[in-house]
Amino acid sequence: MFDTVLVANRGEIALRVVRSCQEMGIRTVVVHSTADADSAAVRAADVAVQIGPPPARRSYLFAPALVEAALATGAQAVHPGYGFLSEDPDFAEICADNGLVFVGPPPEVMARLGDKASARAAMAEAGLPLLPGSRSTVDSAAEATALAAEIGYPVIIKATAGGGGRGMTVVRDPRDLAKAYRSTRAVGQAVFGNSSVYMERFCESARHVEVQVLADSYGEVVHLGERDCSVQRRHQKLIEESPAPELPESLRRRMAEASVAGAKAVGYVGAGTFEYLVVDDEFYFMEINCRIQVEHPVTEMVTGIDLVREQLRVAAGLPLSLEFDGRGVSLECRVNAEDPDRDYLPAAGLIDEFVPPGGPFTRVDTHARAGWRISPDYDSLLAKVVVWAPDRPQAVARMRRALSEFRITGKGIRTTIPALLRILDTPEFVKGVHDTSLISKLGTAT
Amino acid sequence: MFDTVLVANRGEIALRVVRSCQEMGIRTVVVHSTADADSAAVRAADVAVQIGPPPARRSYLFAPALVEAALATGAQAVHPGYGFLSEDPDFAEICADNGLVFVGPPPEVMARLGDKASARAAMAEAGLPLLPGSRSTVDSAAEATALAAEIGYPVIIKATAGGGGRGMTVVRDPRDLAKAYRSTRAVGQAVFGNSSVYMERFCESARHVEVQVLADSYGEVVHLGERDCSVQRRHQKLIEESPAPELPESLRRRMAEASVAGAKAVGYVGAGTFEYLVVDDEFYFMEINCRIQVEHPVTEMVTGIDLVREQLRVAAGLPLSLEFDGRGVSLECRVNAEDPDRDYLPAAGLIDEFVPPGGPFTRVDTHARAGWRISPDYDSLLAKVVVWAPDRPQAVARMRRALSEFRITGKGIRTTIPALLRILDTPEFVKGVHDTSLISKLGTAT
Repeated sequence: MFDTVLVANRGEIALRVVRSCQEMGIRTVVVHSTADADSAAVRAADVAVQIGPPPARRSYLFAPALVEAALATGAQAVHPGYGFLSEDPDFAEICADNGLVFVGPPPEVMARLGDKASARAAMAEAGLPLLPGSRSTVDSAAEATALAAEIGYPVIIKATAGGGGRGMTVVRDPRDLAKAYRSTRAVGQAVFGNSSVYMERFCESARHVEVQVLADSYGEVVHLGERDCSVQRRHQKLIEESPAPELPESLRRRMAEASVAGAKAVGYVGAGTFEYLVVDDEFYFMEINCRIQVEHPVTEMVTGIDLVREQLRVAAGLPLSLEFDGRGVSLECRVNAEDPDRDYLPAAGLIDEFVPPGGPFTRVDTHARAGWRISPDYDSLLAKVVVWAPDRPQAVARMRRALSEFRITGKGIRTTIPALLRILDTPEFVKGVHDTSLISKLGTAT
Repeated sequence: MFDTVLVANRGEIALRVVRSCQEMGIRTVVVHSTADADSAAVRAADVAVQIGPPPARRSYLFAPALVEAALATGAQAVHPGYGFLSEDPDFAEICADNGLVFVGPPPEVMARLGDKASARAAMAEAGLPLLPGSRSTVDSAAEATALAAEIGYPVIIKATAGGGGRGMTVVRDPRDLAKAYRSTRAVGQAVFGNSSVYMERFCESARHVEVQVLADSYGEVVHLGERDCSVQRRHQKLIEESPAPELPESLRRRMAEASVAGAKAVGYVGAGTFEYLVVDDEFYFMEINCRIQVEHPVTEMVTGIDLVREQLRVAAGLPLSLEFDGRGVSLECRVNAEDPDRDYLPAAGLIDEFVPPGGPFTRVDTHARAGWRISPDYDSLLAKVVVWAPDRPQAVARMRRALSEFRITGKGIRTTIPALLRILDTPEFVKGVHDTSLISKLGTAT
């Protein structure tokens, strides 16, 4: 196992990685921007290295500073967390060039799966079901128009390099297609540095279900069940759970098997997530996330497996020795610092009071605390509240209790807790039959 | 199920009970002394009722105020937590007389088991193994001397009404016996209002292992595995775990069976704990605690069962419908506000910074927070840090990580965290072969 691991991230996920390292006896190096000099991860780390000013492109996205910090501190491996450079095959390659183990799949696998059009092609080859759509990228407005007519409206145009809910446009009317094609390309170029796009049929009412896989470098692949992430606002997940509710057992099994087959087909190594749309009890491959997910704790609560630990073990060349054995139900709510009166813009500011919920089967992953200043430079995730219970009604009741208990105050600080509580109370969510349209149906109040 | 439950306690256990009630849709009434007017339990409760000044005998131990609060708020049941009136059969009877359900065993069962000498007699009758000792109370110094000579030194003299580590004296030399007999009677009278004592053989090296049982009012009794609570300072538990480490499977099974048989023999109802000494792979009955224990979370973590919920269900007359199915290992560390430089006297004061640990498989039960003033009027328990892992080495590593992460500062505030970390690092604890002599062997540093 590694002696020292560098954590190339910030916020709750940096602390999350430090925690697993500490439990494994691994020394931790946490890099940080000047805005994060007294962060929870920095406090917990053995070594902290300042790598630049707050803007991410000058710190958390600046690969040379990360590599230099790793080499200077004797780290043998780099854990990228999620976001930032976690799915950047170039960064993985730079790490390898410098003798550092990148905790993730091999760069060539990341490159192939990171491009959503080529991931789609690879999974089609592996026999996974896809929604009707382009075989590969769509390279002109004329091609887009012809293809959309063939697959039928509505369609969705997606940037091949997109992610985090950005770089996607739904088109319902043929007259809007050319404009949407061009704007999605522009967003792809501006946000992800890549203007290529692909197209799929768009399903108005679908469930977002994803399968967690773990693969070692000896070809062994296991799945750890699935997560439902259908509660989304503008393609951003708000509430996740495992197992997916009201899913036919045969569908659950087929999705797990498809994911293991897909991972094997591309030589996947590490933790990965196969994302699917579920429509009318059929599933369709969407994309693969080559990293730990924000919502990984619900899988941990149900399986008892520490996913970050397994990532590190696999990265160190150890063989997997576990199998899926799920128990009960786990829910996660993302508590974001956002202002509902300002269209959910991030609400930065100094936290005055911060009392997270606790007690039975309640887990909180957060880097925040009283006295912590929420920076406008980074995403608005403040805390993940995770609960477990023997069954879903108890888990929902427990989440309601936990969120109600959470106290976060501070000048200018607003959170998504009231909105989350409203979602938990909707009849669709209570029954577990909601789909990705839930939030838009609830209207502006959420 | 009850509409409204009154919580007749304070601190973390009052909050613990409120949490389960909320998850069950039960309205909560929390009583409080003036010192606890802004406590976590009060904040979380639906209704708060002030019942008196800080001294417990004028508030939390003052039954008329509790009953009045229950009747005034429409509560149908009273949950006593642990300590205070939780094992007082008179209080249970007063509740019944006022039409209130006391969440605990019937008063006559509590009376029989609360007197440790009569509990011993009842369990001997039920076939449970006992250490050599008095059949009932020891009523004169002469009788004590004769009995001690018969069973052999060292012996331990215990107040029949004792508890919480008080009212016990070990005697190693016959010349000390008469004095110890008299002083234990005096402590029993002063602290518990009852001077009667009994005597047992004292084992220098024993493990404290206890079995959790749940019984409904229809005669159904289940056990939920055992807990090891051998890490004690002056008979006060500091670290608890489930399952007990390094316990032969046959012994584990026999202890569970004995506990179920013992509970059935006395018509037990509710949650209860059978405490045993384990010496050389044999077990000996010590006493029964007729209430929820401080250390109940380790059983919850391993079984997935919410014990307070089950207490409430059984109290409401519902039948039990669960069975023991344990998974992994759970540890609890009691973080007390105590000053190691002042012989571990409670260290009261205002909490400045309070950042509890979080993350994977880490649970914190606490009523404390930044800005909370630790009162000298109550016991020093500040937080319970509970972890779970698939195996014991991982659980110990996780606990080390969690305790290291815990930040509690404030003028005059000291905690037991450094001492707990030292205990976790002892070779005996790491191997799981420690017994109740561990702390005294470590010396004054702990």
